[in-house]
Amino acid sequence: MQFRSDNTGPAHPKVLEAILAANAGYTAPYGDETAMEAVRARLREIFEAPEAAVYLVATGTAANALLLSTMTQPWQRVFCGTLSHVLIDECGAVEHATGGARLEPVAGPDAKIGIAEFEAALAAVDPADIHMTQRGPVTITQVTERGTLYTLDEIRAIANLAHAHGSGVHMDGARFANALVALGCTPAEMTWKAGVDAVSFGATKNGCLGVEAAILFNPAKAREFELRRKRAAHLFSKHRYLSAQMAAYLQDDLWLDLARQSNAAGQGLARGLRQIPGVTLDYDPAANMLFPRWPRVAHRRLLDAGAAYYPWGDVATGPDDEAVPTRLVCDWSADEGATTRFLDTLRATAA
Amino acid sequence: MQFRSDNTGPAHPKVLEAILAANAGYTAPYGDETAMEAVRARLREIFEAPEAAVYLVATGTAANALLLSTMTQPWQRVFCGTLSHVLIDECGAVEHATGGARLEPVAGPDAKIGIAEFEAALAAVDPADIHMTQRGPVTITQVTERGTLYTLDEIRAIANLAHAHGSGVHMDGARFANALVALGCTPAEMTWKAGVDAVSFGATKNGCLGVEAAILFNPAKAREFELRRKRAAHLFSKHRYLSAQMAAYLQDDLWLDLARQSNAAGQGLARGLRQIPGVTLDYDPAANMLFPRWPRVAHRRLLDAGAAYYPWGDVATGPDDEAVPTRLVCDWSADEGATTRFLDTLRATAA
Amino acid sequence: MQFRSDNTGPAHPKVLEAILAANAGYTAPYGDETAMEAVRARLREIFEAPEAAVYLVATGTAANALLLSTMTQPWQRVFCGTLSHVLIDECGAVEHATGGARLEPVAGPDAKIGIAEFEAALAAVDPADIHMTQRGPVTITQVTERGTLYTLDEIRAIANLAHAHGSGVHMDGARFANALVALGCTPAEMTWKAGVDAVSFGATKNGCLGVEAAILFNPAKAREFELRRKRAAHLFSKHRYLSAQMAAYLQDDLWLDLARQSNAAGQGLARGLRQIPGVTLDYDPAANMLFPRWPRVAHRRLLDAGAAYYPWGDVATGPDDEAVPTRLVCDWSADEGATTRFLDTLRATAA
Amino acid sequence: MQFRSDNTGPAHPKVLEAILAANAGYTAPYGDETAMEAVRARLREIFEAPEAAVYLVATGTAANALLLSTMTQPWQRVFCGTLSHVLIDECGAVEHATGGARLEPVAGPDAKIGIAEFEAALAAVDPADIHMTQRGPVTITQVTERGTLYTLDEIRAIANLAHAHGSGVHMDGARFANALVALGCTPAEMTWKAGVDAVSFGATKNGCLGVEAAILFNPAKAREFELRRKRAAHLFSKHRYLSAQMAAYLQDDLWLDLARQSNAAGQGLARGLRQIPGVTLDYDPAANMLFPRWPRVAHRRLLDAGAAYYPWGDVATGPDDEAVPTRLVCDWSADEGATTRFLDTLRATAA
Repeated sequence: MQFRSDNTGPAHPKVLEAILAANAGYTAPYGDETAMEAVRARLREIFEAPEAAVYLVATGTAANALLLSTMTQPWQRVFCGTLSHVLIDECGAVEHATGGARLEPVAGPDAKIGIAEFEAALAAVDPADIHMTQRGPVTITQVTERGTLYTLDEIRAIANLAHAHGSGVHMDGARFANALVALGCTPAEMTWKAGVDAVSFGATKNGCLGVEAAILFNPAKAREFELRRKRAAHLFSKHRYLSAQMAAYLQDDLWLDLARQSNAAGQGLARGLRQIPGVTLDYDPAANMLFPRWPRVAHRRLLDAGAAYYPWGDVATGPDDEAVPTRLVCDWSADEGATTRFLDTLRATAA
Repeated sequence: MQFRSDNTGPAHPKVLEAILAANAGYTAPYGDETAMEAVRARLREIFEAPEAAVYLVATGTAANALLLSTMTQPWQRVFCGTLSHVLIDECGAVEHATGGARLEPVAGPDAKIGIAEFEAALAAVDPADIHMTQRGPVTITQVTERGTLYTLDEIRAIANLAHAHGSGVHMDGARFANALVALGCTPAEMTWKAGVDAVSFGATKNGCLGVEAAILFNPAKAREFELRRKRAAHLFSKHRYLSAQMAAYLQDDLWLDLARQSNAAGQGLARGLRQIPGVTLDYDPAANMLFPRWPRVAHRRLLDAGAAYYPWGDVATGPDDEAVPTRLVCDWSADEGATTRFLDTLRATAA
Repeated sequence: MQFRSDNTGPAHPKVLEAILAANAGYTAPYGDETAMEAVRARLREIFEAPEAAVYLVATGTAANALLLSTMTQPWQRVFCGTLSHVLIDECGAVEHATGGARLEPVAGPDAKIGIAEFEAALAAVDPADIHMTQRGPVTITQVTERGTLYTLDEIRAIANLAHAHGSGVHMDGARFANALVALGCTPAEMTWKAGVDAVSFGATKNGCLGVEAAILFNPAKAREFELRRKRAAHLFSKHRYLSAQMAAYLQDDLWLDLARQSNAAGQGLARGLRQIPGVTLDYDPAANMLFPRWPRVAHRRLLDAGAAYYPWGDVATGPDDEAVPTRLVCDWSADEGATTRFLDTLRATAA
Repeated sequence: MQFRSDNTGPAHPKVLEAILAANAGYTAPYGDETAMEAVRARLREIFEAPEAAVYLVATGTAANALLLSTMTQPWQRVFCGTLSHVLIDECGAVEHATGGARLEPVAGPDAKIGIAEFEAALAAVDPADIHMTQRGPVTITQVTERGTLYTLDEIRAIANLAHAHGSGVHMDGARFANALVALGCTPAEMTWKAGVDAVSFGATKNGCLGVEAAILFNPAKAREFELRRKRAAHLFSKHRYLSAQMAAYLQDDLWLDLARQSNAAGQGLARGLRQIPGVTLDYDPAANMLFPRWPRVAHRRLLDAGAAYYPWGDVATGPDDEAVPTRLVCDWSADEGATTRFLDTLRATAA
């Protein structure tokens, strides 16, 4: 009954096998290994972007911060969601990487940046006013931090607004694969065809040990990205273990299969939760993350029964029947039996 | 005949096995896994430093830059060797991490910071002069970038000078184990007992995939380090794969065994080279790195024969008998037969 | 009819005379001139703070950014008002000076940081959560950017909250004197006695050419401030012209007299405006700034009649009778006749 | 007998008169005043550069740091002289403004960057090497920090090298006027016609209170400069007092007259010193700065007699006849009688 996060579960065996295989013999360091060429070619193919600049780093925060720093001047604003990882969970990594640019939270429905809200945020900046921080890029998270999805139309609308104001568009795709299989579109459709300029293509949460691709569809700033990556200490000497992970992840659509598994687990969990009296869902779960609420007493029973997740609030004290929210995440390795036990325990408490 | 670097060879099988073993099941992320507690305890034990703050990052540059940023104010100088990795090979990572501190190269014999030169460099800063960048920490590399070693007395002398001027002492131990077995002392003797305040304890070059420990003997700034690590995007979510590597590396003195192997290979290579006419060594190799010179024609023969290393200069054009320098590095997996073939080829050319 | 800002009017003749007088002969540079000692002593006396560190810079933004950078770590938040100058009008100067700290807007009534809102903002930061930017200082503006005032109780409440959470308290006193005479308290009461740790003591807007004092009541970080000031290029070589301005400004309570003049002008203007039908005031003006609204047509008449101020909106097009807001500021040199003419014109339009 | 620096003397009366005149009435703030337009036009005319972007700041360090930050990426090197003000006397202002670029000292004869040395420094950077900090601009100081001058040929040679390697050229003209009258060329010849891209055009040392022009001959980065200036807190609200100074400084060639006066004083002093036995000059003084040496005992006599200058060394203790170096600077107000008395005192001691 593991629902804490998709970073607490194991990596997929095929990814580990690839690391073992990559270990044989000597190879060029710092991304100059042959395997990286294949990874680059494969990602360009997947994204239908033969010119794209493609790099690997080991953390999602690195991908986000390095890409955004390549798109932002220090005196600019990075428009982001009010619940976005870059704003809430990266301890100022974007500010650090950009030399002090400002994150500008933009509200909206369903944990997304709203189109109207974004338009207003752009309009609030007067480029002629030297006293203001200026317009910089917008970053959207797909899947969002509340498990919802931007539609392709929404991405396009945000990107159009951004481009009309000289701003770039970054996608934090920590759960890119989950979004893709949920939307049922192509990587190109979800990104550059909708106006996205750069993507953090996550793999760590979806079955790898620690690897993310940073992709710039326009390679004009490729060298700048490389220098920023090195300077930020994110260029690996034994880079082969990053490219091996990514190669295995992309091989035979493993990445899509794993995302389908975790999404299916999430959707199954959602279906079950919806049938239990006293349980509500804060957002409509589109992929593998859920934000339900149920009575305090049920939290205690679940935790006592060995369920692993983080209640958002004190479950030890307070009225038994008060609803306490939580986040549940299903990773690729989610166990159907565990889900059943979890739902059973919750149902029993509700009864 | 692989002598390019100790980052082009494979990781040790035991390290890979540990990663496989660590993959089983669910675990807490971000360094909160139980395995990290054991790693921390073991490193404290090895360093006889029960209070030390111990962290893992994935690159040596990250360990250096984060530790130094914890020890340096933006308006200070970081004293470093003229050939040091932080100065030459990190693309300004220290400047980036510190918010613009200045690297101040200090010359000295044998690719080391000289005691007298360091004293002069410290004296050249007048703390009462507001116009000057101020004294900050000194960083020494052990093994140095030219394969030489600081003696314990030299470390102590530098540390005493530093401390007398309010400066901290950092050791870039990318090849810490190689230095240790070469000196035949304890980790404590080579570090805090000699006055070192913080160590980048390298493991990547010596048989791991990508992991380094950052150690602060005085834990007063432990929390600051943690925040800097997160902000610099160097805190891994699936941290278990870092702690697994380090645990295996320390288990049963694997780290010392591997360093002994690479040092032995380096020393054997040096002995062989010294007996070949026309070959000279720029420094006295103390561990696993050599800086020899031999005629251009010999470089060509070696490279033709499949030797893998980087000549420092053009070996295609120029007089055949002109000596061209190079760097050779033996990693833990260095193959004795390869060394013999290498020496034979070189000897044949010389004859 | 000059109401654009208190930085569009002239400096006071006594300040200019002091500059002329300071020009005679040779003197030590960089703040080592004797006159600066007198300024420091006088400000310490005025603030009843014999230990305070006292410096001069030429712009208010410099005072704010340098003081806040001395109080803030790069991974922290600076709590500020939603309309604050540091947030809106300094183009990221705080982010630049601090190395990327984050400004965290805190709402509240009357353009002030609300006590409850600040408490919530502090509580929203969990110091144990490494993923979050951390608590840093709070900065309050006195007079606020909407012409209102913090009471001493409000300052005390904010400072108590801040200190209880390990945060420092900065006051942006660009209009310090206006606030002081409006409140009728002492400088000590409005600052350190209420818990303020550092003050930007403005003089530029109140009759000087360009000089602000930066005051740290606890001198522990005095040297750090000096180094930051120099590094930020804000240490003047011919510093004598800064100290001369400040000396004249403080001499014989000139600073208080000038603030009384501009406040009186502002209050007179407010009284007049309140009596004109169709004119409303957005805030209750406590000093020399007013935020009124009146019909578009009246704006056009006033501007045609030579009134100098900035309407906040398009006054050329739109319904004649729609209220359009504006800001009016009275400086020390405000001319009573001009105020009368301004009110007469507005009254005539309203009739 | 005032020879400490050209920032310890008075401003010229005409500059003060201009400030008084500028004080009358209301005017637009932040450089939007009409007077600034005239200053801009006049500087463009003087430099024969009708497109140049022209700004005013109050300190030379601000002009240097802001211009260089506009020309440099954080991962680049700024090539500078080994004795340059940016390197020695600005407490890391360039590092701060650029976000951590590195100052790379380049040696050369006569306190200048040597052509061969600069060529070697450029060649030492391999743009294909991601581990290295990269080539950025070069900054040359004219008059140098040791009172010597770059010839126009030397400037051209440095600029040609720089441009051939994609680097820009900045001139720190803290003593621009002194250099110009010493060389007898036009401002255009000493700058853009010789390949200089940006100039810190000093006025503070040569008769102003505190004003420097920052000039970018290519205005492509004009807006970036403006944003950097604001963000660094160097945009003055009451900017009129900066433009008034600069206007007076340029009016009727005052700037050239004052430079001629200080140069003449410097040259007269040099002639006198050369005739005194036991006095030597470390550099050939080209303008108003001298670096002589004379016996310790003579220093004591001069200081006892009221001479104001900084001996570079301890003059209280040590052998009487040991030569101790010093720096002497003549400002525009240098007094011929004082020079005579100074030389007489020195001559008397020597005798």
